[in-house]
Amino acid sequence: MLNIVLYAWATPNSRRVTIMLEELGVPYRIHPINIRAGEQFEPPMSTLNPFGKVPVLTWSECEETRVLTESGAILVALAERYTRLLPSEDGPRDAVLQWLMVGLTALAPATGQAHHWRSLAMERCDVAIDHAVTAVRRVYDLLEEHLGRQAFLAGDYSIADIAAYPWIERCEWAGLVLHEYPSIERWHGEISKRDAVRRGMAQPAGATLD
Amino acid sequence: MLNIVLYAWATPNSRRVTIMLEELGVPYRIHPINIRAGEQFEPPMSTLNPFGKVPVLTWSECEETRVLTESGAILVALAERYTRLLPSEDGPRDAVLQWLMVGLTALAPATGQAHHWRSLAMERCDVAIDHAVTAVRRVYDLLEEHLGRQAFLAGDYSIADIAAYPWIERCEWAGLVLHEYPSIERWHGEISKRDAVRRGMAQPAGATLD
Repeated sequence: MLNIVLYAWATPNSRRVTIMLEELGVPYRIHPINIRAGEQFEPPMSTLNPFGKVPVLTWSECEETRVLTESGAILVALAERYTRLLPSEDGPRDAVLQWLMVGLTALAPATGQAHHWRSLAMERCDVAIDHAVTAVRRVYDLLEEHLGRQAFLAGDYSIADIAAYPWIERCEWAGLVLHEYPSIERWHGEISKRDAVRRGMAQPAGATLD
Repeated sequence: MLNIVLYAWATPNSRRVTIMLEELGVPYRIHPINIRAGEQFEPPMSTLNPFGKVPVLTWSECEETRVLTESGAILVALAERYTRLLPSEDGPRDAVLQWLMVGLTALAPATGQAHHWRSLAMERCDVAIDHAVTAVRRVYDLLEEHLGRQAFLAGDYSIADIAAYPWIERCEWAGLVLHEYPSIERWHGEISKRDAVRRGMAQPAGATLD
């Protein structure tokens, strides 16, 4: 009997995984971790992930128990387990991994920095805001150019799109509006129509970051 | 006939790949891209990777040509091609992917931010320096605790260690000294002894970031 519990909050990284689970159609239960209340540093999270980051996914099936952390690693692990949304042939797999990494290592950290300096920092620092927003714009320019030439980030819809989507959804964290980026907006609209994405983005029910 | 060309400079991300290629013992040629001179935005780089980031690896063998970008994706692709340094069984693979992601999405971006604010930024901004260094210290605290309990980041030496090592090597970018982190220092010393690592860290010959 498969038992999946996802420790998550209303964060883009958590929603990478709720979208993925919805796409795969596997049953899971959510254990909400209110990161604004510091619950990520208390049990059970503090033992599951000493880094204190959501999401964490625990997987139990028969004798096997896996504790998965880091949203990018969870996407790869689920994709490989179900052989979905991550091709196995060299060329298509290369492309998905490349664009997955752009989402994980460029889009997400840059947007996170912009959010910090624009909204969370105790002290206003214009030079830090400019630096962060410029870094986000550089990723958006890359994505805009790329998505002007193809429907999804890497061939068919894949974990590369799933990793990027919840962060693009938060473009206002960097003060950007999708209207300025018509190809990204088209891609975003396409993905937003997916039932699995709608369900995944609504999780955890009632959780907010405000 | 296998022909690998690596477009690289003396950056931690480039050295992830030179170390990996040296560990695998596959022949490769380096095409130096001086990022301080802006060569990453000129041909051939501008066509190979519109994001303007090193490293890029081109792989030609018989009829097959692959252009690989994003150092994390290159590590995974090479590991899978040679079935080395990334286990295939669930548990060990989960661990390697988790710690690979910590290197790619936490250690590297945070250290890069600290380097920017401490050394590269035109305008000094103490609050940005503090924020960046605190983020780096948080990753070091996690690694110190983790490496106090095990020899390498995830079971045997793996691509998780290779992704983190060249960034730890640059700890001075965040104003840190390894002496403060005895377990990281022990791990760093162990990896530094490897011939492949020594050779990989010396590439591209003559390239500097100063």
